[in-house]
Amino acid sequence: MAAADPRRMADAIRFLALDAIARAGDGHPGAPLGCAEIATALFTRHLVCNPDDPEWPNRDRFVLSNGHGSMLLYAALHLAGYAGISLDAIKSFRELGSPCHGHPEFAPHHGIEATTGPLGQGIANAVGMAVAEARLAAEFGPDLVDHRTYALVGDGCLMEGIAHEVISLAGHLRLGKLTFLWDDNRITDDGSTDLSISEDVRARFRAADWQVIDCDGHDVEAVSAALLLAKGDPRPSLIACRTIIGRGLPRLEGQRGAHGGRVFDSDCAEARAARFWDHPAFTVPEDVLAAWRDGAGARNRAAYAAWQERRAASPAAIRTEFDRRAEGRLPDAWRETLVGLKRHWTETAPERPTIEVAADILAALTETIPDLFSGAPDLEGPTKHKQALPAFTAQNRGGRYLHYGIREHAMGAMMNGMAAHRGLIPVGATYLVFSDYLRPALRMAALMELPVITVYSHDSIGIGRNGPTHQPVEFLASLRAIPNMLVLRPADAVETVEAWEMALANRHGPTSLICSRQPLPPLRRSPGGENLSARGAYVLAQAAGGRQKVTLIGTGSEVAVALDARAQLQAEGIPTSVVSMPSWDAFAAQPDSYRAEVIPPGTVRVAVEAAVRLGWDRWIGENGGFVGMTGFGASGPGEELFRHFGITADAVVREARARL
Amino acid sequence: MAAADPRRMADAIRFLALDAIARAGDGHPGAPLGCAEIATALFTRHLVCNPDDPEWPNRDRFVLSNGHGSMLLYAALHLAGYAGISLDAIKSFRELGSPCHGHPEFAPHHGIEATTGPLGQGIANAVGMAVAEARLAAEFGPDLVDHRTYALVGDGCLMEGIAHEVISLAGHLRLGKLTFLWDDNRITDDGSTDLSISEDVRARFRAADWQVIDCDGHDVEAVSAALLLAKGDPRPSLIACRTIIGRGLPRLEGQRGAHGGRVFDSDCAEARAARFWDHPAFTVPEDVLAAWRDGAGARNRAAYAAWQERRAASPAAIRTEFDRRAEGRLPDAWRETLVGLKRHWTETAPERPTIEVAADILAALTETIPDLFSGAPDLEGPTKHKQALPAFTAQNRGGRYLHYGIREHAMGAMMNGMAAHRGLIPVGATYLVFSDYLRPALRMAALMELPVITVYSHDSIGIGRNGPTHQPVEFLASLRAIPNMLVLRPADAVETVEAWEMALANRHGPTSLICSRQPLPPLRRSPGGENLSARGAYVLAQAAGGRQKVTLIGTGSEVAVALDARAQLQAEGIPTSVVSMPSWDAFAAQPDSYRAEVIPPGTVRVAVEAAVRLGWDRWIGENGGFVGMTGFGASGPGEELFRHFGITADAVVREARARL
Repeated sequence: MAAADPRRMADAIRFLALDAIARAGDGHPGAPLGCAEIATALFTRHLVCNPDDPEWPNRDRFVLSNGHGSMLLYAALHLAGYAGISLDAIKSFRELGSPCHGHPEFAPHHGIEATTGPLGQGIANAVGMAVAEARLAAEFGPDLVDHRTYALVGDGCLMEGIAHEVISLAGHLRLGKLTFLWDDNRITDDGSTDLSISEDVRARFRAADWQVIDCDGHDVEAVSAALLLAKGDPRPSLIACRTIIGRGLPRLEGQRGAHGGRVFDSDCAEARAARFWDHPAFTVPEDVLAAWRDGAGARNRAAYAAWQERRAASPAAIRTEFDRRAEGRLPDAWRETLVGLKRHWTETAPERPTIEVAADILAALTETIPDLFSGAPDLEGPTKHKQALPAFTAQNRGGRYLHYGIREHAMGAMMNGMAAHRGLIPVGATYLVFSDYLRPALRMAALMELPVITVYSHDSIGIGRNGPTHQPVEFLASLRAIPNMLVLRPADAVETVEAWEMALANRHGPTSLICSRQPLPPLRRSPGGENLSARGAYVLAQAAGGRQKVTLIGTGSEVAVALDARAQLQAEGIPTSVVSMPSWDAFAAQPDSYRAEVIPPGTVRVAVEAAVRLGWDRWIGENGGFVGMTGFGASGPGEELFRHFGITADAVVREARARL
Repeated sequence: MAAADPRRMADAIRFLALDAIARAGDGHPGAPLGCAEIATALFTRHLVCNPDDPEWPNRDRFVLSNGHGSMLLYAALHLAGYAGISLDAIKSFRELGSPCHGHPEFAPHHGIEATTGPLGQGIANAVGMAVAEARLAAEFGPDLVDHRTYALVGDGCLMEGIAHEVISLAGHLRLGKLTFLWDDNRITDDGSTDLSISEDVRARFRAADWQVIDCDGHDVEAVSAALLLAKGDPRPSLIACRTIIGRGLPRLEGQRGAHGGRVFDSDCAEARAARFWDHPAFTVPEDVLAAWRDGAGARNRAAYAAWQERRAASPAAIRTEFDRRAEGRLPDAWRETLVGLKRHWTETAPERPTIEVAADILAALTETIPDLFSGAPDLEGPTKHKQALPAFTAQNRGGRYLHYGIREHAMGAMMNGMAAHRGLIPVGATYLVFSDYLRPALRMAALMELPVITVYSHDSIGIGRNGPTHQPVEFLASLRAIPNMLVLRPADAVETVEAWEMALANRHGPTSLICSRQPLPPLRRSPGGENLSARGAYVLAQAAGGRQKVTLIGTGSEVAVALDARAQLQAEGIPTSVVSMPSWDAFAAQPDSYRAEVIPPGTVRVAVEAAVRLGWDRWIGENGGFVGMTGFGASGPGEELFRHFGITADAVVREARARL
């Protein structure tokens, strides 16, 4: 074991961070300097990882929730020996193409477990990872799954509302392998934390049944002792590390400006003098590097080898399943269940709310895809996404349904953590209007390219009397606006099966599966084998009796409205087709020829969707008609609301006629 | 004073609620039945209000944060004597056009202080109202402003993250006139609260420096005594009212199904038998009604008269100013400051970040519009929206800037509360990407038609090295999707002045004023008097040298890109105009003739905006060109990113040429 003064090991982080930030021209020195000892204690004495095999499934997870301190993470990963975070990479901090982005971006192959920066997301990711660990440990046993999850959190993370959601839930679930390291530096961007908080943060954690440990965040031994205490308690632990922001940078340390202030060469020189660090820029003394490599690498070698042996000794079936889950692959036969359901619903043709259909599909899939892990924010009844799944609780880690409580944002960000962890496919169910509550997490899922599925019920004014607070009108547009978000709005049971298939097949981004509360009639009687929804849009009813004059386009519950309108137009001798368009994204990705076939140029086009128009012009053109909402909904019976807001077959017919 | 058994006074709420919910066919009986005694204690013994003058500026504010219990509020308002909530109105509960909507909708003239339903919003509104009261009391003195704010909150409100944001902040600000009444019924929609929470809620409030009082929520005397205690403490108070959900409805009381379960005629009959209530449906015994009218009306008559006397005795200037603020009118000369600034910036033509310009405008406006109340979630430095304003703190109620801490959602919903209270014009500043964190509150502002102004900085990849987590690409589209949200993206200093004018003039909805972090060159040198931005879009540079062939359309920082492209095209002899389009909404509201003048039909149209395309097809048509973003940004220098993502004059020229 190489020996080195822990102070110098921490200073190695400090100076890599300072030099990189000075070189980049901007960055956030406060956290890397203030948390250097914390990271040293964690990485070189406690974190179970293998820099030579960064994606080792049983590694401890570490999330830098205060993502602006990204250089802390890059420096620690470099010192620990992650090859992808080379010295050159650190020198290119914040340059286009560098793996050392301004804020950490999800790259488990480099040891970066989550994209962080928007505060509060990272700690919620960590709670999701701890849930995934507990669930997988119950499934595969501690021989294969037995690791801890750490998050470094700042004052900002803890002030964000999502923090309390996950603090409360993690305590309730007794996630004992979860540890938050709080960078308690009493400084935020505005200055002293006295400006905006006087709460007793420790008491708040205790109220949520966490163990709280205090320590000097600049004493590697003290942090290390606290980490040891954390391991010995069945509750999740908060280690409150008293620190000085920007520690070691004389001009800024302990000051407001340290958070994101610029670092000049003179600062680097002054810091070197103050810390007796007489090594050139980007130079780590050999003994210090060796101590880091020993601490983060050699220390864990035995544990890694033992785990590999246990894995090799596992029964083949378990090993195969474990590997599949760890690699994030779907089971081979996953589509078969869906094929059967599609056939079934084509034949029995029920008139049902698509949220119920979606829930039935989930129930069927949970048998063939053990990865599926469902949950809802206190909407078990209306979303029906629990089905027969046992609840995941403090007592039953084998559960597959999480009662998130009324904590939508936590659900979204925890699902991201589960997906980033791998081994589970998280499915969250809520009302479409509440997607705004988890939207910051949805964006992160899209950015991290995580296969997270959110199923929404209550997708329009069709919900009726609960009124405009609960009636989405702008949400289809706002979800469609998020890059890499697959938005699906099926029109009936068969399309709901197809949508589920698309959601599962979408392995590099999140899916929003949008369902109705009200029953929808069956529209697809002879679906055949092909997943027509996967093409984004398709002709559901052909124009008859001559050259097509009108194309009606609908989604979800409004496809039936379009069909009624078509019947009227056809009766008047106007050849009219109906296009169902469950996914804009998928349709946009089709070849021009297919799109021209589905929406023939030169035909009058009218779209109908119980939502705002934004974005529809792309499909209907400048002279197209649109029947939908122009403002918020109202409180009244659903069917009456459709009439009240003019979303009717008659209105569609009028729009078409006016253009013929 | 009419006397009536408090039990019967509470039962009057119970049976109005039960009868209305049974008649409507759905609703949420749990809260109205479970909180009947709480509402009775508050309305008939403590709430200072005047049902004959519902909008009395110095009334106590009461927010039903658990808005699903709307029938509790309607019943109490009816019993208290609010004429707009007549017996007929209650009979029409949940029918289209009824003032008794499924969830309460903002209608101060009926005694409804906020639209509630999405959980957590209402309590944050209440905290904003308490801030408004404290600030206005400091300005106008306790003779004119001295009232309390109450919120009834459920378990759901308290689980939502936003709750902790405002609990923490309200304790920090020592909002002693704020009282939460917690319906502690231990049941949520999923069942027992044990399913999702085991936190010590009382300890959590104490950790945030609140007074916590326990009482039996079904004992009017006990609730009343607790309300008295709340008045005597300088801290905000939580009254934890132990209740039984659905109390009085034998089939459901204390049960999971009580929250939103259906109520049948048989339930009404059973409840009547159980509570010895032998009055027909929708019938309140005379003595009970008289006691309510006395308690909520006559009790407050002296206080109301005394306040009117004090107001009449105030110096005329103060009275005039107070009335203006209470009515929500702008001061007469409010535009003059802007005219001066516009002239100034036309002449001096600085190249500046528009966020700095916006901050300077705010600073100038604060002198002429004392209503303006600014704040930011720990971004005082980057948004510069504090300027010389003193901070509003526990010690200084005369402050006009709120350090919200890292609590964006709280900021959004508290601003709604301030605007609903009247007397302040709240302005919140943050980064555009963080608008997702406050989006649920933005939606409520739009729905409530509240004049709330949010100023966003860091509006595109132009922010550079902080990377994709901080680079908005989908936010212009997602904000434009919200009905009644005025979205403004000015291109230079002069347009920023015009945007501020539009924001202030927008008295019936929120405004998103979107600014750049990077400096933008001056584009408008001879702006004249007219607010060209108010038309949504206008021709900034005319096509020259013949019939116009190309129309380039840009917003914000990309208008300069369009001007560069125009120079290239004009140099090639292609007559090209540039349209600046700071507001889609405003442009959509212009007459067709004006729109055809600005974007002449038959010209090649190319739009440029450093954001996703969604919605642009409306303005550029099917064959138009678009230069913008197709996915998330990246970490690198801002100018390099514009080149990397191809948002350049060359790209605009190529798009135009390809269509000529």
